[in-house]
Amino acid sequence: MAFEYKRTVQFAETDMAGVMHFSNYFRIMEETEHAFWRSMGQSVHAAEGNKTISWPRVAVNCSYVAPVKFEEELTVRIGVSKIGKRSLTMKYDFACGDRDVAHGEMKTVCCEVGDGTFASIDIPANIRALLKAHPCDP
Amino acid sequence: MAFEYKRTVQFAETDMAGVMHFSNYFRIMEETEHAFWRSMGQSVHAAEGNKTISWPRVAVNCSYVAPVKFEEELTVRIGVSKIGKRSLTMKYDFACGDRDVAHGEMKTVCCEVGDGTFASIDIPANIRALLKAHPCDP
Amino acid sequence: MAFEYKRTVQFAETDMAGVMHFSNYFRIMEETEHAFWRSMGQSVHAAEGNKTISWPRVAVNCSYVAPVKFEEELTVRIGVSKIGKRSLTMKYDFACGDRDVAHGEMKTVCCEVGDGTFASIDIPANIRALLKAHPCDP
Amino acid sequence: MAFEYKRTVQFAETDMAGVMHFSNYFRIMEETEHAFWRSMGQSVHAAEGNKTISWPRVAVNCSYVAPVKFEEELTVRIGVSKIGKRSLTMKYDFACGDRDVAHGEMKTVCCEVGDGTFASIDIPANIRALLKAHPCDP
Repeated sequence: MAFEYKRTVQFAETDMAGVMHFSNYFRIMEETEHAFWRSMGQSVHAAEGNKTISWPRVAVNCSYVAPVKFEEELTVRIGVSKIGKRSLTMKYDFACGDRDVAHGEMKTVCCEVGDGTFASIDIPANIRALLKAHPCDP
Repeated sequence: MAFEYKRTVQFAETDMAGVMHFSNYFRIMEETEHAFWRSMGQSVHAAEGNKTISWPRVAVNCSYVAPVKFEEELTVRIGVSKIGKRSLTMKYDFACGDRDVAHGEMKTVCCEVGDGTFASIDIPANIRALLKAHPCDP
Repeated sequence: MAFEYKRTVQFAETDMAGVMHFSNYFRIMEETEHAFWRSMGQSVHAAEGNKTISWPRVAVNCSYVAPVKFEEELTVRIGVSKIGKRSLTMKYDFACGDRDVAHGEMKTVCCEVGDGTFASIDIPANIRALLKAHPCDP
Repeated sequence: MAFEYKRTVQFAETDMAGVMHFSNYFRIMEETEHAFWRSMGQSVHAAEGNKTISWPRVAVNCSYVAPVKFEEELTVRIGVSKIGKRSLTMKYDFACGDRDVAHGEMKTVCCEVGDGTFASIDIPANIRALLKAHPCDP
């Protein structure tokens, strides 16, 4: 089982080497994660009672296998690697048709957010239940 | 020894959480790398004889220690971790005054580039010599 | 008649004021234009015989009526204002549900492109015919 | 009299046409404006008593004269076109050495900001005085 997100490579995302700039894979990982939350009826940045819960990144990485070009369609497949007490780690496989393109990972931490401040908290039970109800193989 | 790059956090780089968006650290690592090449009289994307040499990324990562805000000044310190036959790995330490902010790494591969194509080559002797003449402790 | 493009506001597109950063409307105008070209079976940056034809912008503007937030869905409606001998001017109306959000315009020029060079040319007859076959009221 | 801002074109700002993407001129106009505020000892987004004052854009435009490439240095010269009761309009001339590159304009409105909300207010007397003390010819 998996969650998939499709996304066309945009012109502004290319660079003078003629391919999508490497930093944009991280923006697309995040778009995929947020679409995954929405698919569960949730937002990544949402009110929980009188608090705002969000998921800042603490460690991210990406390996690049092959470049992608303007107007190619990426398919990003999300896999939940680990649900910790306060953290959530997800993997992202990028493909372009049959072509393997890139592999990334992001570890996020459940936080109560203020104005530019973040305090880590245990993942709330209702969110933990949602993640269990929507398993994604890594 | 080290190469340092200073950079003000811009408004467009912040997000609705009130801090610099995590993807921008990769853009700033790359800016730092390119400034390092320029400090050696070189460009990251340059003619070598009748070829164009560039350094696409094959693997990158970043760990985030503390957020940074609009108009704060980042100091990025570059360290060369490894000079391989065809690859170059560099570390990037982000600080904001005395505050430790983030730590990243990028492995790049020396390539002859065409229009959206990349063929890896051995690092040319003159570039290898430049890197040896400008050591940066990791 | 019109061409419409729908687009969710992404987290990385917001800024510390809590709304989509103003520069992103230009990126979305361009995405809309490129989707319009694709809807006609064409690409904005494409081979025509042994040349590459592209459409660099010569003048652009945007007026902002109301802010948009993370995860809101934008509908962008394109209108062709003017097809000149060498130029093409299009208008872009941004709405978010019933809410009027922003109005932009971009004048582009038909060019033969090299590596970072642009030479304006008359709009080729086949492209002119496509635009006439897909009218969009401004 | 004028305020000048210098800025190197970065790799991530280029696109597959080999030049800086047109949307980035707006980000650089904003960087220039914010550097101008800082040069007056002020921030564009700052506490004034118990309020936060900011300057959202209501109308912006840019005309492109010549493209710029990776590692070229832009000089942006700011000129204050109009100080209204609640609005401030500034012009931005982009040059690259002797080469005229682009001309932009941004009309901003003085606002009291909340979380994603903006209420226009009269420009505070201390800010109006600062602008008068730092005239920039348009």
